[in-house]
Amino acid sequence: MSLWINNQWLAGAGEQFQSLNPYDSSVVWQGKAATTVQVEVAVTTAETAFLTWRNTTLSERLAVIECFAQLVQQHQPQLARTIATETGKPLWESTTEVAAMIAKVALSLQAYHERTGTRQRQQADTTMIVRHRPLGVMAVFGPYNFPAHLPNGHIIPALLAGNTVVFKPSELTPKTAQLMCELWQQAGIPAGVINLVQGGRSTGMALAAAAGVAGVLFTGSAHTGHLLHQQFAGQPQKMLALEMGGNNPLVVGPQYGAIDAAVYTIIQSAFLSAGQRCTCARRLYIAAGKAGDELLARLVTVASQLIVGDPLATPAPFMGPLISNVAADQIIVNQQQLINAGGVALLAATRGQGALVTPAIIDVSAITELMDEEYFGPLLQVSRYHDFTQAVVSANQTRYGLAAGLISTDVQQWHYFIEHIRAGIVNRNRPLTGASGDAPFGGPGASGNLRPSAYYAADYCAYPMASVEGEQLQLPSQLAPGVSLN
Amino acid sequence: MSLWINNQWLAGAGEQFQSLNPYDSSVVWQGKAATTVQVEVAVTTAETAFLTWRNTTLSERLAVIECFAQLVQQHQPQLARTIATETGKPLWESTTEVAAMIAKVALSLQAYHERTGTRQRQQADTTMIVRHRPLGVMAVFGPYNFPAHLPNGHIIPALLAGNTVVFKPSELTPKTAQLMCELWQQAGIPAGVINLVQGGRSTGMALAAAAGVAGVLFTGSAHTGHLLHQQFAGQPQKMLALEMGGNNPLVVGPQYGAIDAAVYTIIQSAFLSAGQRCTCARRLYIAAGKAGDELLARLVTVASQLIVGDPLATPAPFMGPLISNVAADQIIVNQQQLINAGGVALLAATRGQGALVTPAIIDVSAITELMDEEYFGPLLQVSRYHDFTQAVVSANQTRYGLAAGLISTDVQQWHYFIEHIRAGIVNRNRPLTGASGDAPFGGPGASGNLRPSAYYAADYCAYPMASVEGEQLQLPSQLAPGVSLN
Repeated sequence: MSLWINNQWLAGAGEQFQSLNPYDSSVVWQGKAATTVQVEVAVTTAETAFLTWRNTTLSERLAVIECFAQLVQQHQPQLARTIATETGKPLWESTTEVAAMIAKVALSLQAYHERTGTRQRQQADTTMIVRHRPLGVMAVFGPYNFPAHLPNGHIIPALLAGNTVVFKPSELTPKTAQLMCELWQQAGIPAGVINLVQGGRSTGMALAAAAGVAGVLFTGSAHTGHLLHQQFAGQPQKMLALEMGGNNPLVVGPQYGAIDAAVYTIIQSAFLSAGQRCTCARRLYIAAGKAGDELLARLVTVASQLIVGDPLATPAPFMGPLISNVAADQIIVNQQQLINAGGVALLAATRGQGALVTPAIIDVSAITELMDEEYFGPLLQVSRYHDFTQAVVSANQTRYGLAAGLISTDVQQWHYFIEHIRAGIVNRNRPLTGASGDAPFGGPGASGNLRPSAYYAADYCAYPMASVEGEQLQLPSQLAPGVSLN
Repeated sequence: MSLWINNQWLAGAGEQFQSLNPYDSSVVWQGKAATTVQVEVAVTTAETAFLTWRNTTLSERLAVIECFAQLVQQHQPQLARTIATETGKPLWESTTEVAAMIAKVALSLQAYHERTGTRQRQQADTTMIVRHRPLGVMAVFGPYNFPAHLPNGHIIPALLAGNTVVFKPSELTPKTAQLMCELWQQAGIPAGVINLVQGGRSTGMALAAAAGVAGVLFTGSAHTGHLLHQQFAGQPQKMLALEMGGNNPLVVGPQYGAIDAAVYTIIQSAFLSAGQRCTCARRLYIAAGKAGDELLARLVTVASQLIVGDPLATPAPFMGPLISNVAADQIIVNQQQLINAGGVALLAATRGQGALVTPAIIDVSAITELMDEEYFGPLLQVSRYHDFTQAVVSANQTRYGLAAGLISTDVQQWHYFIEHIRAGIVNRNRPLTGASGDAPFGGPGASGNLRPSAYYAADYCAYPMASVEGEQLQLPSQLAPGVSLN
């Protein structure tokens, strides 16, 4: 029973597929994908449900959403274990993902009121009101790295605004999505308000192409995001919000403070979630010279000692496996490409059990034309620089623009950095992987289509409706020129 | 000297063209269009100017903008006369357009702070800040119906946010644009921050295609807007904000209050600016029965007596000519199409001097399949209805969704209307052509791409930059699992 449509669990009629535990290759979930016809039924169901759901009150919608959040809280261990098993993220980290899901409710409500909601002012007998209206059926495309938190970050604001949802999770994480939907069902969400369709590329294409879809909220690869943007050409009326990753620089100034704190911040930036966060640092710029040499040496030592292993093990590892053997192979290939181009492996990644990959630190200072690719794993490219200004120029040399960071105790450098860096998330002396929940999330360039999510998700879940209202008609004391009522 | 690039007035090297006074066909402006090369020079110039302008302070930018507003105030008579001469809008109405330009400064500043700007919160040693950053070179495409106010409504927020601008006005209103830019020059805007390129379709295509353009802010036809949307396919990183008109319904309930006030509100909705506002009522729904009969009869009488004539005449007309003879011919053609399809001309439009067209009211109740076209002139289609709910269904039968209105003293009907109508501007007992300056402007469907303008223009002139900042690095008392600093 892989699909959930109109509050019914159904078998897909498409291709059979499985999700595997990337540590031990055991089967976590198996089922059949939704066919085009099934996707269309899900969309039509969501369209029908929209007619009622859009006219519910905010407090009615909020009641169901809060009930869902309570159930998530109650099922935190089960959800975290499912995420850990399906993605390979350590249990402790998967637990934080579940906490972020719960926190999303209050944050989304705050954003709903602040960014959208209703506001009103009176001017004599006339009232000016701005309301916001839902768009319709939102297709939510979830990624595998945060299989619960990221689609949840679209679903909650979409529902709050009065939209209905068809959710297509990553084909690598169907089980997590199924569990989420089971909790929505327990929470008593009305039939058809959320629908789940499982499957890969063809299911996703059918969903994006369905006539009844009012918008697509996508988190995933730049490649797929650009294809969606092409697919929606000439359909300006459809909402498209794309979140597509980055090739994020982290610059360390010559004065970086305590060496271990700097190392720890870099580790958290580059290797958290085994480098599978879209905000992870991919490129590290360290000043040439003794302080930089020391930092880099210490970084290599600490990274080489990170515990990499079974996500469910005790004591817990820092990193579990990557999402799949394919992803793990790819990182090893990318490492070799960097070495072939002139990079020096200060710490070489190696494969372990399943999709385990140990951290890699490659000095790419000698590579004149660095590929502008997002290596989605624990592969950190280090460049040594001689001039801070030039380091910032290099940091900006990416078609992406998601995240960037500076480690420096020099406030002048920070001022320069924040004025010249081009990115949507720019942290100082804090890990790049730390984003504030009450802030917008997104960046310019190939990282998205300028529809930031997280706190600004409310913006793309509603359109404004501006009204000028009077209880009675008005006839001005002086008519416009050229009008006569005689 | 038709182009203004890097603070220099230059001759275009493209095709010669003219703008004509649509009342007497006298030449208002003539010059040559910008070639592709000249457009690219303008964009490159704006890119260079961006490097400096983006790093000015808000108060520095505001100082120039306020100086511009003062100059607009001083030159209000000249600007209004230019608008009236070039567009055919009566002088009194052109004067209100200039007033709207001035008011835009304070409104844009308020929106800048509220929708974008900077906000900050502290949590122990960590500061969370959301800043907003300009996008780069914004290409502003102006329409002919508000040749000053509407591009100004993009230019002011774009500049406030720190963007630079290349402005391509409608080829029908080059003189108004030139005068605006002369005032910007007098205001002391730094060289290259605003650049003017004149021309038609090929100039516009060159501008939209220029590599250095970070975004296009467009107000114009649905046809051109959809072409732009196609042109930008696969370039999600470019901002595209489209404002594309509507086919707006105005529903009159059986209880409409004072008959002359209702008639006046309908006249203002349908025939202001000779029907050349994108919020103009195109479709009027009146209940069958005696009260409706009386209203319609009175409407026809009053509309037939509207003064239509020389925009500069004293006493002033209510309507001047349409923008061009082509546009005037088109309205007569559209009227004939409606009559051929079974419409009954209660008041038939006739041509006058130049592009003058008198108001038309066509009863289209007998037409079963009404074309969903925006007739951009004084051509009002009336349908009689028997059931209010069905009238709202009919009102929503458009691929557009810009404006809609209800004339009714029945508050229950209003509640039903506001919950069921699909439009971005929804007024009650007030003309559809009245929109509040501190409200967003735009609508769903083919009216735009869900990037509302006016008060929400700030949103598409900047991207958010979210930061988590510490003056010093932090080493938590408890490290993440699997990390050792020993």
